[in-house]
Amino acid sequence: MTVSSTQLTPLLFLERSADVFGDKVGFIQGEQRTTYAAMAAQATRLAHALKGAGIEPGDRVAYLSPNTLEMLIAHFAVPLAEAVLVAINTRLSRHEVLHILGHSGARLLVVDESLLPLVVDAANEVDGLLRVVVIPGPSSTGTDYREFLATGTDDPLPWRVDDERSAISINYTSGTTGQPKGVVYTHRGAYLNSLTEVIHSRHSPGSVYLWTLPMFHCNGWCTTWAVTAVGGTHVGLRAVDPAEIWRLIKAEGVSHLNAAPTVLISLANHADASPFETGLTITTAGAPPSPTIIGQMEDLGASIVHVYGLTETYGPHTVCEYQPAWTGSANRVTLLARQGVAYIGVDPIRVVDDDMHDVPRDGVTMGEVVMRGNNVMARYHDDPDATEKAFRGGWFHSGDVAVWHADGYIELRDRSKDIIISGGENISTIEVEQTIMAHPAVLEAAVVAIPHEKWGERPKAFVVIKSDTSVEPAELIEFVKSRLARFKAPDTIAIVDELPKTSTGKIQKYVLREQEWGDHGRRIN
Amino acid sequence: MTVSSTQLTPLLFLERSADVFGDKVGFIQGEQRTTYAAMAAQATRLAHALKGAGIEPGDRVAYLSPNTLEMLIAHFAVPLAEAVLVAINTRLSRHEVLHILGHSGARLLVVDESLLPLVVDAANEVDGLLRVVVIPGPSSTGTDYREFLATGTDDPLPWRVDDERSAISINYTSGTTGQPKGVVYTHRGAYLNSLTEVIHSRHSPGSVYLWTLPMFHCNGWCTTWAVTAVGGTHVGLRAVDPAEIWRLIKAEGVSHLNAAPTVLISLANHADASPFETGLTITTAGAPPSPTIIGQMEDLGASIVHVYGLTETYGPHTVCEYQPAWTGSANRVTLLARQGVAYIGVDPIRVVDDDMHDVPRDGVTMGEVVMRGNNVMARYHDDPDATEKAFRGGWFHSGDVAVWHADGYIELRDRSKDIIISGGENISTIEVEQTIMAHPAVLEAAVVAIPHEKWGERPKAFVVIKSDTSVEPAELIEFVKSRLARFKAPDTIAIVDELPKTSTGKIQKYVLREQEWGDHGRRIN
Repeated sequence: MTVSSTQLTPLLFLERSADVFGDKVGFIQGEQRTTYAAMAAQATRLAHALKGAGIEPGDRVAYLSPNTLEMLIAHFAVPLAEAVLVAINTRLSRHEVLHILGHSGARLLVVDESLLPLVVDAANEVDGLLRVVVIPGPSSTGTDYREFLATGTDDPLPWRVDDERSAISINYTSGTTGQPKGVVYTHRGAYLNSLTEVIHSRHSPGSVYLWTLPMFHCNGWCTTWAVTAVGGTHVGLRAVDPAEIWRLIKAEGVSHLNAAPTVLISLANHADASPFETGLTITTAGAPPSPTIIGQMEDLGASIVHVYGLTETYGPHTVCEYQPAWTGSANRVTLLARQGVAYIGVDPIRVVDDDMHDVPRDGVTMGEVVMRGNNVMARYHDDPDATEKAFRGGWFHSGDVAVWHADGYIELRDRSKDIIISGGENISTIEVEQTIMAHPAVLEAAVVAIPHEKWGERPKAFVVIKSDTSVEPAELIEFVKSRLARFKAPDTIAIVDELPKTSTGKIQKYVLREQEWGDHGRRIN
Repeated sequence: MTVSSTQLTPLLFLERSADVFGDKVGFIQGEQRTTYAAMAAQATRLAHALKGAGIEPGDRVAYLSPNTLEMLIAHFAVPLAEAVLVAINTRLSRHEVLHILGHSGARLLVVDESLLPLVVDAANEVDGLLRVVVIPGPSSTGTDYREFLATGTDDPLPWRVDDERSAISINYTSGTTGQPKGVVYTHRGAYLNSLTEVIHSRHSPGSVYLWTLPMFHCNGWCTTWAVTAVGGTHVGLRAVDPAEIWRLIKAEGVSHLNAAPTVLISLANHADASPFETGLTITTAGAPPSPTIIGQMEDLGASIVHVYGLTETYGPHTVCEYQPAWTGSANRVTLLARQGVAYIGVDPIRVVDDDMHDVPRDGVTMGEVVMRGNNVMARYHDDPDATEKAFRGGWFHSGDVAVWHADGYIELRDRSKDIIISGGENISTIEVEQTIMAHPAVLEAAVVAIPHEKWGERPKAFVVIKSDTSVEPAELIEFVKSRLARFKAPDTIAIVDELPKTSTGKIQKYVLREQEWGDHGRRIN
C-alpha cells in the first residue's frame, strides 16, 4: 500500500457505495429492499463465515444460483475473503456441474434451493469440497444460509487486495474442444472493465438495472460490479419471463438492462409490450442482433448499445459506437447491427488471416477476430495448453470470423465451426457429438448449427448408425438430455447413410452447414 | 506486453478516437476544425520532431500556452515521444516561469507567440534548454511551430508505454513554503482519473466541451485526456471572456464546461446570460462555490457537478454526489455546496486530527483533509523532503481544513494559513511576504487572505517599515508586481507599527485574519 497507488479491485466499489449511498436501496427482489449498507454488511459477514469454514486465500468458492441478492453479494464477499468466485451456469446438467466443481477445485458450494437436485450428494462426489450451503427459495423455510452467515462477524475487513493481478473469479465456458474451460478473471481486469461498462452502457447513480442477464455469464458482463460502482439499484430476477420483465420495467422504473437478442425478441413480441415512457438503455450481446429487433426496440423508445465479446474478454469487448452521420441514414439499423470497435482503454481489435496479418478493411474478406488488453482473461484455469493455443501470436483468438469494414467496424459473419450460440448460451458441437457417440448404436455423428427464429441458432445432428443396430432420433435426443444441459440437445437428428468427408477422412461439417443455411447472407444468427 | 495486461496510459485514448472517430471534429477554435485523425497525425509528427530535436525518454518538455489545439496535442505528443509534459501557468511572472523551466530541467520549450515576452532569452538563462519553439498567434505569420513539425514524420509510433507508473507530466503548484513544487503525474494515474472524470462529469461521445478551464491546471483536471477518451469535441478558448463564452455555448452547442466559481459568477451576471436550451453540465472546483451561484446556474438550466481536489490529486478528488432525498429539500443547494465524497475507485477520503485520527462526523469538529489512491501524485519532482512531509502517516496531506458530516460528506471550512485562492489560482502568502521583505524599506510583513466578491479571496499585506525609512503602499504593490505574477500582489497594504506576535515572537497571522473576516461563517471564500 502506497499513498498514490491502490491495487485495483472491484471491492473498492462496494466499500464506496456503502459509504456514500448507505441508505439507498441497492437491491430489489419482489417486496424485499436491501440498502447498500446492508449489502456491505452481509458481504463482510459472509467473508468471515467463509474464512471460518476453512476457506484460504486463493481457494475457489462455487455458486449455483439464479439472479438473487445472495448471488450478487457473492461477487464481493468471496473476494473479500481472498477467495475466487466460480459462478456456475444453472442450465447445465448435474454431470457438467460436478465436473466444474471438481475442475475448479471448489472448496465450498453455495446453492439456491431450487437447484439442489443438480448437486445432491456433491460433497461426496467432489474431492475437496468441504461444505454445501443452501440458500432458501422464496417460499422456503430453510435456514442453512442464514445459519452459515451467523457464523461470521461484523468486524470490518479491508476492501483491498495485495495484488491486482490475482484472480477474482473463474467463469466456465464451453470451448471448441468440448471440455468446459475455466476462464480466470483478475481484480485489475474486473475493475477496469467495470468502469468501461459504466461508460459504454451509460450508467449513473440513477440507474435501475434489471437482471435479465444471468450473473453466471461473465459475472453478468461485470455489471455486478459496474452498477455497484456507481451506486445504482439492482433489480433481481429469478427467471427470464417476458410478462414479469414488462411488469418490473414499469413497477420499478427500470432504466437499464442487458440481454441477448433472443430475450429482446420475446419482449418485443409479448402482449404487454408498450413504449418505455422514461426511456430504457438496452445493452445487447450474446449473438448478433438483427436490424429488425434493433428497430423494434428503438420504436418502443429503447436506446440500443450493441456490444460483443466472449467469456474470455470479461463479456463485452467491442461496442458499435454510434456515429452522428448515421442519423437519418436509410441503413442506420444495419450499421447498428455491426459488432463495432474495441472498448475504451482496450487495445484496438483486429481481424486477421491465418498468418496473423490484418485482412483488408473491405467489408468482404473474412478473418478471425483477435483481441488484446486488460479485459482479456489471465488464462484458462489449470490448462496451460489451451491458454497457449488461445494466446498464440500474442493475441487472444476468439474463434469468431468477421469482416472488417472501411470505417474500422467489425461485423461477425461466422464463427469457429464448433460453437453454436442458442439463446445466448454456448454449445460445443464437439461435446454434443461426443455425447451422441457414447450411445452404443451410433457409429459417427456431426452436429452443426441451424438458424432458428427464436433462439438464433439450434444444434442439428447427422448420425450414422452401426450396421445391425437401430435407434430412433427421439431416443438419441433423450440420451443427450440425460447427460448434458437440455438446451444442448439437438432438436432434430437426421439418420444418414454416410457423412461428407475429405479424401483423408475428415468430416466436412461445412457441407452440412451449407445445405442447412442455404441463402442466408451469413453463417450465424 | 502481454495478451491480457496493457500498461495503462492516456495515449490509448487518442489512438482509439483517431481510429473510431477519425472523421469527427475533435477540436474547434474559431473557424478552425480539426478531426481526430488530424489530431493523432499531428501528435505523431510532433513526437518525431521532439525525438529529432534530441528529446530522450524521461526528458521534460515545457509548454507555455493558452487553451489551443497545440496545447491539447502536447498532452499526447510529449508522452508519445516518451517525454514528460510541463504545462506552465501563463499567469506567472517571467521570474517564476524561468524558475520552473530550470527546476523541471526542461530541455525544450514550446511557447505561444502571445506569451513570448515572458521567456525572451530563456534559452540563455535556463541551463539545458535546447530549444524554444514558437506557436504563431491567431493573426501571426510565424512559421516556427510549423517548421518544427515538418522535421517530424508520419511513421506510426506505438501508443504504448513500458511502465504505467512512469511520469507523464509535472504540474507546478504554489506550495505553502512559497517555492513552487512540481507535482508528478503517472500514466496510470492519468488514465484512471480520466475514466472517473468521464463518469462523474457525465461525458459521452456527444460531449462538446468548452475549455474555460486552463489546460495548465492539472492538465485541465485530466479533461484533456478524458474528453478525448470518449471522442467528444473540444472547443478551445484563448482567454476567459464571458461574452465569448456565451457566444460559443450557443454557436457550438456546448454541453459541458469546467470552471472555478469565479468564472460562473461572471457568466451568471453577464448581459448575455440566458437559459441553456439544451442543457449544460458544469463541473466546478478551484474554490468552494456558494449556494447562491449554484442556484443561479441551475436556474439557467445547468447541472452542477461540484468537485474538489488539488494539483496533487490530478485535480478533482471528491464529488458532491447527489442524493435523491435532497430533491425538494429547502437546503438543497447548501447540501450541494459541500465538497462531498471521494471519487469512484479512490480510497475513502478522511478528515483527521494532528495524530491522524478521524475527527467525529459531527459537522462541527474541524480537521485536515487527507487523501490516498491512484489519483494522488507520485511525488514532488526532485524534492524528497517535501514529498515525505506531504505523505506523512501514509496519506497525502491537503492542508485544507474541513468538517465531516454525519453522511460522510466533507465540507471545507478553512485551509492552510499560507494559501490564498484567488480566481481559482493559488497564491502562497509566504512567497508574497518574502517578496515584500526584499524591499529595502521593509522590516516585517504578513500577508493574509481577505474575502472578495469577485475573486473569492485576495491577499492583503500588513507591513512594518524600518525606522528612518519610508515607502508608500502603492510603491510596494508595484514592487511585488515587478517580481511575481501580477495576481499575487496584494490589493491593499496596511503600514502598521507592529504585527501581533506570540510570546516567542511568532507572527499571529490568525489575529489579522480574524479582524478581516469578522463574522463570515467560514474562513475561505
